[in-house]
Amino acid sequence: MPDFSTRLARIQADHSSVLCVGLDPDPARLPTSLTKGAALPDATLAFNRAIIEATAPYACAFKLNFAFFEVLGREGWRVLEETIHAIPDDLIVIADAKRGDIGNSARFYATSVFEHLNCDAITVAPYMGTDAVRPFLAYPDKAAFILGRTSNPGSADFQERMLGDKPLYLHVAERVAAWDREMPGMAGLVVGATSPEALATIRATCPTLPFLIPGVGAQGGDPRAVMQAACTPNGAVIINSSRQILYASPGPDFASAAEQAAASLRQQLFQALQR
Amino acid sequence: MPDFSTRLARIQADHSSVLCVGLDPDPARLPTSLTKGAALPDATLAFNRAIIEATAPYACAFKLNFAFFEVLGREGWRVLEETIHAIPDDLIVIADAKRGDIGNSARFYATSVFEHLNCDAITVAPYMGTDAVRPFLAYPDKAAFILGRTSNPGSADFQERMLGDKPLYLHVAERVAAWDREMPGMAGLVVGATSPEALATIRATCPTLPFLIPGVGAQGGDPRAVMQAACTPNGAVIINSSRQILYASPGPDFASAAEQAAASLRQQLFQALQR
Repeated sequence: MPDFSTRLARIQADHSSVLCVGLDPDPARLPTSLTKGAALPDATLAFNRAIIEATAPYACAFKLNFAFFEVLGREGWRVLEETIHAIPDDLIVIADAKRGDIGNSARFYATSVFEHLNCDAITVAPYMGTDAVRPFLAYPDKAAFILGRTSNPGSADFQERMLGDKPLYLHVAERVAAWDREMPGMAGLVVGATSPEALATIRATCPTLPFLIPGVGAQGGDPRAVMQAACTPNGAVIINSSRQILYASPGPDFASAAEQAAASLRQQLFQALQR
Repeated sequence: MPDFSTRLARIQADHSSVLCVGLDPDPARLPTSLTKGAALPDATLAFNRAIIEATAPYACAFKLNFAFFEVLGREGWRVLEETIHAIPDDLIVIADAKRGDIGNSARFYATSVFEHLNCDAITVAPYMGTDAVRPFLAYPDKAAFILGRTSNPGSADFQERMLGDKPLYLHVAERVAAWDREMPGMAGLVVGATSPEALATIRATCPTLPFLIPGVGAQGGDPRAVMQAACTPNGAVIINSSRQILYASPGPDFASAAEQAAASLRQQLFQALQR
């Protein structure tokens, strides 16, 4: 099995796409054509399958936000498993679970996500430090994307605070680069799309780490500015879009609207590289 | 329904206990008397039930480490639900899930843990800031324990780094105290037992926040030093012990050994207050 970075590069080249479709199936926003007469977990699964089928040709990856599955209770894990099963084998599956706990617990979270659910990557919180992250870096063909600078307003509370001459998020980025030197190809960074300047600074600090970039579209990040700041010949990016694609139409045409939104965003991202 | 702090104070007084039993049921350490001929999820549930029954008289709370349930796959959520169901109603149930994500996702994690699983409290990672924490503080009778200074080696990587004149963990503690002023009674801090000095400093910064304190026992924290540093008439503590109780004996007498370990630790903690 090739390592994560090699596989990602091949998939992105084969599909001419850096687009990741974020599966955040909000119970309140599912089309009534699916929820009518159906139990919520079943409607959620039907929605996910339709979105996957419609958008897979335009994507390199799918990202599953675990909050939207756990809210379904005991049935949520089934919907999670079956949603993952519906994703074509030649695409990357990212568990957006933002886990983070000490050694033994981290090892079990990694077992759950990488071995049982068979995801290719996971998002991980850095606050607890090295021993909380290392178990996620122990799988040669998998990757952990560590939260660097996120795209939400709360990123200002701690991430952007100055620690010596640079913000905390750059210290985290440097540490992730160090982990990557130790165990190459298994670490990446989550960096929000909302500040191209921060993206460029982090890219300069971490020239070869893959970046998972949320916040394009609904959260305001500009696709062209993001690509120009973060995507380099040696620095891969995965650009996530969730709401803009999932809820492109509230009607029964949601899947074809999602297809068009995904095709359009892939094209915008592709063109930004042709500058 | 009384708020979390009021309820915690009453339970701790009624039971003369600040002890929390941490349910970290490691598949590799379950007694063979339970695993023989049984499926792992069923053996895990039987173990949890026996531990709860044996130790509840000595505890004010149980803490469930979600990693040890998620590792069971789809069955894990059932074991989680049924374990929670086995905990007496007059004790606190803490979801040690260390969740942390932006607004909408955080809201769903809170729904899952507080409404579906009916836990009384959750552990939350602070890295994403205010909007990632606030949804967990929206339940008047529940609480969120935010990671302050953890007890693992990796706490040195970011938490202990100086940000101006004090370590990051004290900035987090100050922010949690500010959230608590805004929405009183619903926030607490996770502070590891391994440094009584740090505990005392954080207590001085946050005189009235409840502290959830892991790291006593197997991880090396001294019960007396911890109590003297952190427990005050206005500052409640919940002292967690997991491995020391769960695995007090590997044999078929595991439950009675756990009972003795819990009784002994409760007594040590109680005596530390009689100084």
